[in-house]
Amino acid sequence: MRVGMLTGGGDCPGLNAVIRAAVRKGVQDYGHEFIGYRDGWRGLVQGSTVPLGIPAVRGILPRGGTVLGSSRTNPFKDPDGVHRIRENLAKDDVDALIAIGGEDTLGVAARLHEEHGIRCVGVPKTIDNDLSATDYTFGFDTAVNIATEAIDRLHTTAESHMRVLVVEVMGRHAGWIALHSGLAGGANVILIPEQRFDLEEVCGWVTSRFRASYAPIVVVAEGAMPQDGDLVLKGAAAHDSFGHVRLSGVGEWLAKEIEQRTGKEARTIVLGHVQRGGTPSAFDRWLATRFGLHAIAAVRDGDFGRMVALRGTDIVRVPLRDATARLKTVPAPLYEEARTFFG
Amino acid sequence: MRVGMLTGGGDCPGLNAVIRAAVRKGVQDYGHEFIGYRDGWRGLVQGSTVPLGIPAVRGILPRGGTVLGSSRTNPFKDPDGVHRIRENLAKDDVDALIAIGGEDTLGVAARLHEEHGIRCVGVPKTIDNDLSATDYTFGFDTAVNIATEAIDRLHTTAESHMRVLVVEVMGRHAGWIALHSGLAGGANVILIPEQRFDLEEVCGWVTSRFRASYAPIVVVAEGAMPQDGDLVLKGAAAHDSFGHVRLSGVGEWLAKEIEQRTGKEARTIVLGHVQRGGTPSAFDRWLATRFGLHAIAAVRDGDFGRMVALRGTDIVRVPLRDATARLKTVPAPLYEEARTFFG
Amino acid sequence: MRVGMLTGGGDCPGLNAVIRAAVRKGVQDYGHEFIGYRDGWRGLVQGSTVPLGIPAVRGILPRGGTVLGSSRTNPFKDPDGVHRIRENLAKDDVDALIAIGGEDTLGVAARLHEEHGIRCVGVPKTIDNDLSATDYTFGFDTAVNIATEAIDRLHTTAESHMRVLVVEVMGRHAGWIALHSGLAGGANVILIPEQRFDLEEVCGWVTSRFRASYAPIVVVAEGAMPQDGDLVLKGAAAHDSFGHVRLSGVGEWLAKEIEQRTGKEARTIVLGHVQRGGTPSAFDRWLATRFGLHAIAAVRDGDFGRMVALRGTDIVRVPLRDATARLKTVPAPLYEEARTFFG
Amino acid sequence: MRVGMLTGGGDCPGLNAVIRAAVRKGVQDYGHEFIGYRDGWRGLVQGSTVPLGIPAVRGILPRGGTVLGSSRTNPFKDPDGVHRIRENLAKDDVDALIAIGGEDTLGVAARLHEEHGIRCVGVPKTIDNDLSATDYTFGFDTAVNIATEAIDRLHTTAESHMRVLVVEVMGRHAGWIALHSGLAGGANVILIPEQRFDLEEVCGWVTSRFRASYAPIVVVAEGAMPQDGDLVLKGAAAHDSFGHVRLSGVGEWLAKEIEQRTGKEARTIVLGHVQRGGTPSAFDRWLATRFGLHAIAAVRDGDFGRMVALRGTDIVRVPLRDATARLKTVPAPLYEEARTFFG
Repeated sequence: MRVGMLTGGGDCPGLNAVIRAAVRKGVQDYGHEFIGYRDGWRGLVQGSTVPLGIPAVRGILPRGGTVLGSSRTNPFKDPDGVHRIRENLAKDDVDALIAIGGEDTLGVAARLHEEHGIRCVGVPKTIDNDLSATDYTFGFDTAVNIATEAIDRLHTTAESHMRVLVVEVMGRHAGWIALHSGLAGGANVILIPEQRFDLEEVCGWVTSRFRASYAPIVVVAEGAMPQDGDLVLKGAAAHDSFGHVRLSGVGEWLAKEIEQRTGKEARTIVLGHVQRGGTPSAFDRWLATRFGLHAIAAVRDGDFGRMVALRGTDIVRVPLRDATARLKTVPAPLYEEARTFFG
Repeated sequence: MRVGMLTGGGDCPGLNAVIRAAVRKGVQDYGHEFIGYRDGWRGLVQGSTVPLGIPAVRGILPRGGTVLGSSRTNPFKDPDGVHRIRENLAKDDVDALIAIGGEDTLGVAARLHEEHGIRCVGVPKTIDNDLSATDYTFGFDTAVNIATEAIDRLHTTAESHMRVLVVEVMGRHAGWIALHSGLAGGANVILIPEQRFDLEEVCGWVTSRFRASYAPIVVVAEGAMPQDGDLVLKGAAAHDSFGHVRLSGVGEWLAKEIEQRTGKEARTIVLGHVQRGGTPSAFDRWLATRFGLHAIAAVRDGDFGRMVALRGTDIVRVPLRDATARLKTVPAPLYEEARTFFG
Repeated sequence: MRVGMLTGGGDCPGLNAVIRAAVRKGVQDYGHEFIGYRDGWRGLVQGSTVPLGIPAVRGILPRGGTVLGSSRTNPFKDPDGVHRIRENLAKDDVDALIAIGGEDTLGVAARLHEEHGIRCVGVPKTIDNDLSATDYTFGFDTAVNIATEAIDRLHTTAESHMRVLVVEVMGRHAGWIALHSGLAGGANVILIPEQRFDLEEVCGWVTSRFRASYAPIVVVAEGAMPQDGDLVLKGAAAHDSFGHVRLSGVGEWLAKEIEQRTGKEARTIVLGHVQRGGTPSAFDRWLATRFGLHAIAAVRDGDFGRMVALRGTDIVRVPLRDATARLKTVPAPLYEEARTFFG
Repeated sequence: MRVGMLTGGGDCPGLNAVIRAAVRKGVQDYGHEFIGYRDGWRGLVQGSTVPLGIPAVRGILPRGGTVLGSSRTNPFKDPDGVHRIRENLAKDDVDALIAIGGEDTLGVAARLHEEHGIRCVGVPKTIDNDLSATDYTFGFDTAVNIATEAIDRLHTTAESHMRVLVVEVMGRHAGWIALHSGLAGGANVILIPEQRFDLEEVCGWVTSRFRASYAPIVVVAEGAMPQDGDLVLKGAAAHDSFGHVRLSGVGEWLAKEIEQRTGKEARTIVLGHVQRGGTPSAFDRWLATRFGLHAIAAVRDGDFGRMVALRGTDIVRVPLRDATARLKTVPAPLYEEARTFFG
């Protein structure tokens, strides 16, 4: 059996661990052969491939990024796209496809499977952890650790100058990274896209923190918006084709507003790409490795149109459709918990 | 309402995060007062206390260890123990108790609640992650990250000298740390207490790794045993009263055996205490903080004889009894997954 | 003997290590007493002090920032400043002063010593490592490690998307952080304030890197300028009163230019405050500790108007004047070395 | 011109950075060709080579260990050794040799140059930093950072259980790693090979630390010895052919003695191989890169029989002989400085 693999969307620590695990398991235990498609769906449409065997996956477990490359190409936007995918799969003798990616990538996989009978298995990937079908996605824990370490470092600077530090982290539609790193880093304010914030209330927390003669750290998700939401469009517009944050947006805007309203010096740090690069955390390597093992097992079982997912400590299979059905956002009660530490 | 808190057993990154969260929530939202008992049950028996309020918990979130100190004192071993606990709780005007600890500490809490009507809420703590009632315990993720980072470092030394490196990690009765850090670190052999290992098979994996002209890393849990289990008693005997590993035991024994049987140089690294000290990972800070918030909520609800636990991404309450009912060990299928990467 | 201590200017990892070492040595070995002045010269002018003894310095060695606080107050700008300093030193019975800071802070100390006979010893502090009188200043190694780790992480993101990543690091007048972190991180272009860069040449390196089918990382010091230097004034203007970088300036400008001229997607990461916060590296703790020990030794010897400095592996004493005499910039031959790795 | 390269002795973070820098510079700027000899002198004697060009050195800068492999083979111990070296150099058309290693490796290079006219340039490598001819050697800063991070972690465990922790670090003949990591980690006792320790004095420091109600951390170099030096032979005997520490020796002995004499629980952590593996620190990458650049420059200049060395912030060339002339040990006054923090 020949299995094709591709990675789509923004890069994420753990992609290589998925690829390695699936190839190791498939070759050793199932006698599969593998072929890699370069830069996501683009490679499959254009027929640009990468040889993929045990040697190709040696030593990639701890490496960030993806050895297959990535893109945001959507074959359905190309009138000839699906046709060329069929041709290339036939040419390459590929029996099944493992697609690793987020909403868009898996949405394509779901349609290819349902509408065109192409045998696909999906592996969920979103650094924002906003897929409802799985408890966690790999890359998220790494991003949270990096953001938390940055917040740890910023506390001492804030205290030394009694100044407000605003840390903008990833999360355009869901505030998971902000919530987890803010809680772990001991932030005094955490702002997430799920709940528009009241600038007055934010300034109140900032002021009360100073009253206790400490300096506040404000963690804000790139997608968070004030109750008056104008700047948000600006913020969103400033995102590139990979959804990576640009050096403008809510963080900088917030620091300026806080400075004006509280009279305290405020500075912004936009963590940006640093959150999604580099070696994965132990948890993400473990999760990504298990996703890879279970994805190839699904292929072996002929269980297509499915995606692997984490439920508690188990890896389960869910319909590919569910992967893209609903965005997993931070529930109000969970955000409520965090408010204990505001101000 | 006055709430007593204590931490028992071996230290674990995240203990301070639990204490901080419970105190912040209890004081701010419920108007509770807190009192800390020094060094676990010993402090409660001897009436040695620590003042515990907002100021006492400032800045302790990122700090390892426990500001309350710890011990392995079991009040039931002291004929007068329970009586003195009652006296001290009365003297200190304490209405409820939050006990943070492992099997032993929570076992005492369960008996105090059931047999003596003392109002206890438990928070599970075991760096080995071997409590069946919860998906994860705080401290485990930190230990796994530290062990994984060590394994990452050791690969290059092993390769440079084409030598076997045996890494002994914590885990006397359960192999969770070995399994997770071994998978995350790309170990070539992982040995856990749940399954006695066949020395010949281990040497086979070592040899095949060298045949592929790479150097093997063997990760072994301190409690792992060969099919002939003699050395194990030795190993067990070498543990101190806190169950911390000593510089003898299975790792060193294994390196010597491998060296003799394969003729390859083999060295041992015993990570020991480094795994349980220092600042908690982001995940452990988040989990410990949530445990603290939910423990004090249980106290407020008068829901005693219960322990907080993680199920998926939710914090739930389970009977204290369950906490100590059954050891959570690595299931065979999970270990089977890891074998894909052996050799 | 009573010794006053203060820290001025931007915070820097290692300040607390200096304070701790001087106090430990002074109290234990010389029988000195200490008094801390809050927020640099401001505290001395306003008479706002902090008690400073062994208990006050316990546990601060690994902590970033400064327990004394900091400011940029210059007493010579206050007509009454020097007079009030004299008064406060008399009131507090202070025989000698240890001033820890950069050009400005030490410049004040030099004048107070020369023009007003106030007995001062200086400890050099500049995260940019731009003081000519010393081989290294503490904080610099920490900043370089943080920047290097960030660059390590960014390589995989750059490769996965074959995109240019521009990393803006600290260094307004000297390119030491850019040079060291760029070399250590394997950057493909390093731009420093000492040498105006040719945008065409930069784009040439970027293009040649892509030709080798790798993605380029460009490390740029915040003070670097193109041969046409207009944007630079903008960049400089964007610095706050502590000389901390703002989210505008050369990095963002450079990414836009590269994108336009090479047609490759380019993104900017501004590391900013993260470089100067948090726990010091081992080297910085060692250097800062030795500076503290030698500063208090100079006080004991009555060797005033001097600053401690690192020469090779020795700590020496140099005239305070020299500290501020000449900016230490990157010499051309050293930058030449780095060019081996450009493109 | 064809240049041979080899790495000898124990591995050390930074070796790959030296190789990469020399090859990049030599190929690009001087038009040199390179050939690698596998496993130090053994490869040159046996004629086992590794192709070495720009592609071979891509991406190795951040990797620990050595891509050339290493051994402790001494060609002068083989009657035919030098003869075969001549033959292989002739066969491979090699005009000059860059030898990267410690005392032994460079001693061989010196003799080959002096006695047999083989054109050698040396690069010093010793993780213990004990070569007198250079201020620092690469690998040392990495080892000190790893040891310091471990000590940071151990403080909280020590405090939580009020127990003595003995940390055994590398350093058989020189105490540099113990001194620097002990100072940086805030150890309460530091023991080095240069000065035999008085067990009573050590126990005094331990006891006084407990009296201040803190728990002591004792950092001991593997080569440190008590005033009664018997155990030392045992300790030394326990070293393997690469001089790596074994799980026996002074640390464990010391913990037992302290426990008996003070009645306090004491535990040992032997950091061992973890100190020398993995990615180099920024400082070590910078130093190793500069060593590589200057070594190949010496080759180009025909300046043989020389070794590159660090003096202050400059790279200089010294006679190969000096490299091995005198061991650089910790001078008494420097150790005296550290005693300020004992107890």
